[in-house]
Amino acid sequence: MRTVTGFETAGRKERSDMTTILVTGGHGFLGSHYIHELLNKYPAYRVVSIDVQAEPVPELIRPLYACDRYAFHQVDIRNNDAVEAIFSHYAISQVVHFAAKTHVGESMENPGVFAETNVLGTFHVLEAARKQWMNGPFETKPQYAGSRFLHISTDQVYGPRDEGWADENTKRSPINPYASSKASSELMVKNFHESYGMDALVLQASNVYGPHQQADKLIPIVLRKALSGGIIPVYGNGQDVHDWLFVEDFWRAVDTVFHLGDAGHTYLAGGEQSLKTLDIVVSICTALDLHFPGNTSFNEQIRFVEPANGTKVPHRFAVSTEKLKRELDFEVQTAFEKGLAQTIDWTLSKNRLWEVV
Amino acid sequence: MRTVTGFETAGRKERSDMTTILVTGGHGFLGSHYIHELLNKYPAYRVVSIDVQAEPVPELIRPLYACDRYAFHQVDIRNNDAVEAIFSHYAISQVVHFAAKTHVGESMENPGVFAETNVLGTFHVLEAARKQWMNGPFETKPQYAGSRFLHISTDQVYGPRDEGWADENTKRSPINPYASSKASSELMVKNFHESYGMDALVLQASNVYGPHQQADKLIPIVLRKALSGGIIPVYGNGQDVHDWLFVEDFWRAVDTVFHLGDAGHTYLAGGEQSLKTLDIVVSICTALDLHFPGNTSFNEQIRFVEPANGTKVPHRFAVSTEKLKRELDFEVQTAFEKGLAQTIDWTLSKNRLWEVV
Repeated sequence: MRTVTGFETAGRKERSDMTTILVTGGHGFLGSHYIHELLNKYPAYRVVSIDVQAEPVPELIRPLYACDRYAFHQVDIRNNDAVEAIFSHYAISQVVHFAAKTHVGESMENPGVFAETNVLGTFHVLEAARKQWMNGPFETKPQYAGSRFLHISTDQVYGPRDEGWADENTKRSPINPYASSKASSELMVKNFHESYGMDALVLQASNVYGPHQQADKLIPIVLRKALSGGIIPVYGNGQDVHDWLFVEDFWRAVDTVFHLGDAGHTYLAGGEQSLKTLDIVVSICTALDLHFPGNTSFNEQIRFVEPANGTKVPHRFAVSTEKLKRELDFEVQTAFEKGLAQTIDWTLSKNRLWEVV
Repeated sequence: MRTVTGFETAGRKERSDMTTILVTGGHGFLGSHYIHELLNKYPAYRVVSIDVQAEPVPELIRPLYACDRYAFHQVDIRNNDAVEAIFSHYAISQVVHFAAKTHVGESMENPGVFAETNVLGTFHVLEAARKQWMNGPFETKPQYAGSRFLHISTDQVYGPRDEGWADENTKRSPINPYASSKASSELMVKNFHESYGMDALVLQASNVYGPHQQADKLIPIVLRKALSGGIIPVYGNGQDVHDWLFVEDFWRAVDTVFHLGDAGHTYLAGGEQSLKTLDIVVSICTALDLHFPGNTSFNEQIRFVEPANGTKVPHRFAVSTEKLKRELDFEVQTAFEKGLAQTIDWTLSKNRLWEVV
């Protein structure tokens, strides 16, 4: 187990202008981007990061080892005692909760670990926060006035739709165990607000992409398959539709909701770009053709393959970002073409493709 | 630990017309009524009952010890291995899932055990059923064709409303950890239908009352307080409203949905009688005045007391039973006055009041 501790808190007198934020899942794609940006933007914030995985340390996190406002502990949120220990040791005053099992296919195979991590694990973090922050229902301890729990969720909770856009009032219709577990965890978060008056709220994001993304997601997979010369698999007919949100827009949405959102509310952040999977694959291949000109297009490597057992395609996921724009002045800044180009450039320049195969 | 086994199943050749139904929470108020009626009505059904509490054995269950179609095991559904063992040992083919922590006040004090039992525990039963019944997503084992998972839930998932009636399409707005945990568990049940094609469905009931009810529920408490000569506490102003469903109507609703309901659906059963708590207390006192005539009315013992910390009253819960009536020909048969009279008569005749104080 690897533990990095840049600062100590418990039982000591602290500078009162310091806010200590627990970021769960801090070694994930989203969590590591968030921590990186948060510490850069807010000199008065400290971050305690926990993650079930200590290694590998994400590239965005490595420079933070020299930062005395950053600490990391390897914690599985299924372990209630470990979660509580973090809260009391660091006198955690804010939470941004990313930690979750997220792979839809894996959730079909092994839903148990999703229920344990995403549902019960979220409960552990909520309950630890309640114990740390509150004397009783609707009685926040004075020193934790202003404490807030931001839960990161997903547009998958709404399920697919034939037309129109899901918004925060749309009925939840999860169609896989991952989405179901996230819908359950959202209910718990809202309930800690309803039942105990805890300042808790939810940000749902659509499909986030960008530099540093995990190797098993669509864009890295297509890049790797294309450049390795093998076939580029497209499941079903590639007509499923998702909304894509660039990671920089995502991080700004988290920042916006964390600082400006209303307690008890849910905010939905999409990139306002609903795209067919096949179109994305073709876009990637076309971009690669410019990087590596040749006699044939990378598009020729595309093959349609049968979807995995139990997967129903094509699905259409589409979300409205209107509430976030209207109420919190959020704006999507990165069009997909630009975000995709940045992602491809980063991946190629860093030669990241070969790190994970 | 007390185990009662009326029959053995695993690995033996069975009469093919026998259905083995797992009833979880079989020692509870609802579960014990259901088992009692089920075994009486269907000679070809066997029941395996599990409950976290072996003792006391409910009065409705005691005669079943002589029944070779009944078996009981003390199992906590938080214990995944124990749940799986029951499924494989008895080749369970049907589930009616009552087991849950249900006390709202307790859920405020200790939400953890509600998350563990009602959410993760329900998941364990679902997952054990899936492993027992299915080879993979949408592939039911031939010998388990017709297997069904009926989940018993509550109108509390909808939360209170100022006007109108909640129906199955109403957005879930739980306002306490109990209701939240039940809303989460409903999501899981529906997801096992969506993700795996398992035959699973939900019956939500309003406030069930009747003979054999737990001593800590409203009617038994009022009877006990009234006859002991002490004050009869009414929290807040007694203007909170609930729908009351007589236990015989409840059992018929379970029977109806279990045999006729559509997989993946939710059905809401209410007694079609929305009543103020104060009116119920007065009704009980007035009924007692007839049983025990005297110079003063039991109504004079009523006192308004402050609600417990964090409880927001008055709430109004009101539900529509229209879908159940329209689609499955269900009818509510017992008006509240009649059901209340039966409950009071049973309690007085059995001198049950003094068993638990």
